Formats: sequence, structure tokens, C-alpha cells
Amino acid sequence: MSKLRADISVSLDGYVAGPDQMQDEPLGVGGEALHDWAIELRAWRESHGREGGEENASSMIMEEAHAGVGAQIMGRGMFGPASRGPWGDDPWNGWWGDDPPFHKPVFVLTHHEREPLALSDTTFTFVTDGIESALEQARAAAGDQDVFLGGGADSINQYLAAGLVDELELHVPPVMLGGGERLFAGVGPDLKLEQLRVVEAPGVVHLKYRVVN
Amino acid sequence: MSKLRADISVSLDGYVAGPDQMQDEPLGVGGEALHDWAIELRAWRESHGREGGEENASSMIMEEAHAGVGAQIMGRGMFGPASRGPWGDDPWNGWWGDDPPFHKPVFVLTHHEREPLALSDTTFTFVTDGIESALEQARAAAGDQDVFLGGGADSINQYLAAGLVDELELHVPPVMLGGGERLFAGVGPDLKLEQLRVVEAPGVVHLKYRVVN
Repeated sequence: MSKLRADISVSLDGYVAGPDQMQDEPLGVGGEALHDWAIELRAWRESHGREGGEENASSMIMEEAHAGVGAQIMGRGMFGPASRGPWGDDPWNGWWGDDPPFHKPVFVLTHHEREPLALSDTTFTFVTDGIESALEQARAAAGDQDVFLGGGADSINQYLAAGLVDELELHVPPVMLGGGERLFAGVGPDLKLEQLRVVEAPGVVHLKYRVVN
Repeated sequence: MSKLRADISVSLDGYVAGPDQMQDEPLGVGGEALHDWAIELRAWRESHGREGGEENASSMIMEEAHAGVGAQIMGRGMFGPASRGPWGDDPWNGWWGDDPPFHKPVFVLTHHEREPLALSDTTFTFVTDGIESALEQARAAAGDQDVFLGGGADSINQYLAAGLVDELELHVPPVMLGGGERLFAGVGPDLKLEQLRVVEAPGVVHLKYRVVN
């Protein structure tokens, strides 16, 4: 069966976003520094329609993360807007403009019903009946390929606590946030992990684990 | 000037001891698993008077951690007993028997005065006037060599928050504790770190940082 792969950048002190997340600071105070390692890469810039960028040990990690992925799950906080709540009459269409960088079916966990949204070759399906339903739908859409779970913390924590994640890759820059959204909140010692791979790269370390069932 | 080197094993979810620390379980529930990587090594076993053990990528890390160290600082919780409080008439002499594995001057942070204690070639000096005084005394004892700070979390967090640590090495096994003593509690974004070195080893990753002043 296809794997559920959770993948997220986390500060050395365990936060995936800083304190005081707001509309114009969706990653909270200091949170953007979590992604500096990625934004410098040619692979990230290409996927976001930008030129330039560098190649380093993180390039392989980013390419591998997106290879063999047929569908993605994300939390409502990651889709936005920061205010959350009901969608309203002129609803938010995500942070990414008319050509989101996913290029595949995306399933958004939310408490508020909404019709599917197609933007270029990315389709967003809004799932209101829980994480297991979203995973089932994502697996059906992914076929033989894997399902990618890129955040936020709350979604990853729910899937980890439910024992539904197969692989977990953490990207850890030497950043301290001191507060915010904590990875592993509500996830305890029942989660058994095996260390699969460690890659040192400029300004970040990539840590990959297999969940032992 | 000699460096203050903090060095500690921490779970993937950020704890250096599990919940419910007690006299017969000083590292809390599940906490012993934090040190499995070390206890398997020949270098650790030799320093604790035991035979056997293996050599792997962690061996160099452990040897380096103890090289060039002229004095050590530890918290009262690490010295024990778990109950803490005043020393009493028949005081606790540490967890390590008549031949502690330190073989150097050790400065114990405590709120309760006590005469120095010599056990074999390890001397314990009890410091009641704060972390800066302990560091000053340890530096004087260390001469040209470095000062090692091995825990617990509270002591390391205090030194980090005060900007007194020069290097931080974390040993992270794929262990989840779900609660306990949290590394980096009270330490926020003012702590600026530079990633110095990453070493992958069986069942653990070693992450070394320099504090940027």
C-alpha cells in the first residue's frame, strides 16, 4: 500500500511555526527562518516559478521528498487564511496564487464544508469528516504512489498519534523560536521510530525516520 | 579562554528525562532509552569499569566530548538524590559509588551548603551562589582546558538563557518520551546557533552547535 510520508521543517526547540501567527506572518514571529534552507535551493525556486538558486546536499532531499507522491494532505492552517472559520461568500484560495506548486490532488482538513477548488493542475478537496477519511481519499487519488503530509503541526500530530504515518522526515535548522506550534504535542511514547537516514546540509540537518508498527 | 561545552542526550520530542523521576528511576519513565547509544560503547563501558562494548561512529563523539575537559558542572538533580532538599547528617554521595567516572573537579549547583566531597580522584564542590560563580570556579579549576556541562536540563537551560554556553552538543536517539524535563524551556530566540557538525551513528544522531555571540 502507498505510504503516508510526513515531512516538515522544525526548529531545534521543537516548533514548526513561531508565536503570534497572523495573516501577514503566517509562520509566526521568526518562523520564516525555518524554511531558509529550502528557499535557497534551485529545486524550490523552480517549483515556485523563480530562477537561480543553489545546489547542495539539501537538493537531493527536496527532490526525493516530492518524487513518487500522488496526493497531498494539509491542515486548514496551512491552506489559510490565518483567521480560519467559515469560508464565506468570497472564499480564500490559498497562499499560492493561480498556479500552486503542488500539481496534484490536495486534501485540506477543515471543519467547514466547501466545494472542490481547481487552480491550474492542483485540485483542493475540502474534507470535513476527519483525518482517516482524508487519508482514504488521498490514497485513492494517489494510486500506487505515496501520500505527502506537509503540515501544519496539528495535522501531523493527529496522524502520528493515530499511528497512520509510515515515514517522518524532519528538517532541522539551528533556529530557536521559543514558542508557537509544537511538533509532537499530544504524541507520546507509543510512537516507535527507527532512524533511517541523516543528511547534513548547509544550515540544516535532515532526519528521516520509519514508524515501527 | 576555556569554553563551556554543554552536552546532553535528548529525545526527539525534546526531553532529557521522562515523566515521574524517582529515586529508583532517576531518568523518569522511559528516560534510560536516551542513553542506550552510549552504554553500548566500549569507551563508556571502560570509563565505568566494565568490559566489552562496541566501536561505532559514536565512539569518536564520546572520546571527543571528554577530551580537553578540565572541570565539570552539574545540576543538583543530576547529582541526586531525587528527593533533593537539605543534605542531612548522612548525606548522599552521588549515583556513582566510590569511584565516580569523572576523574576531575565537579561543581554541583545546589541551594544547600555542603563541604566538598572527594571520592577517588573526583572532587565534588557544592556551589550555592549561582551559575556564574560555578562557572568561574570551574574555569579556575580547568586552567587551559574546557568546562563540561552535562545536565540536567534545568542547568543547561539556565546557562543557555544566560548566554554563557559556547558549544552545545545534542545526542538525539529516535525516542519519544511524551513528557518530563524539557530542554530549551525558558530559552528563546535570543539564542543564536551555528550548525557545526552532524554525525549519524547507530540509533542516534549527534548534532553540534556553536553559540554565536
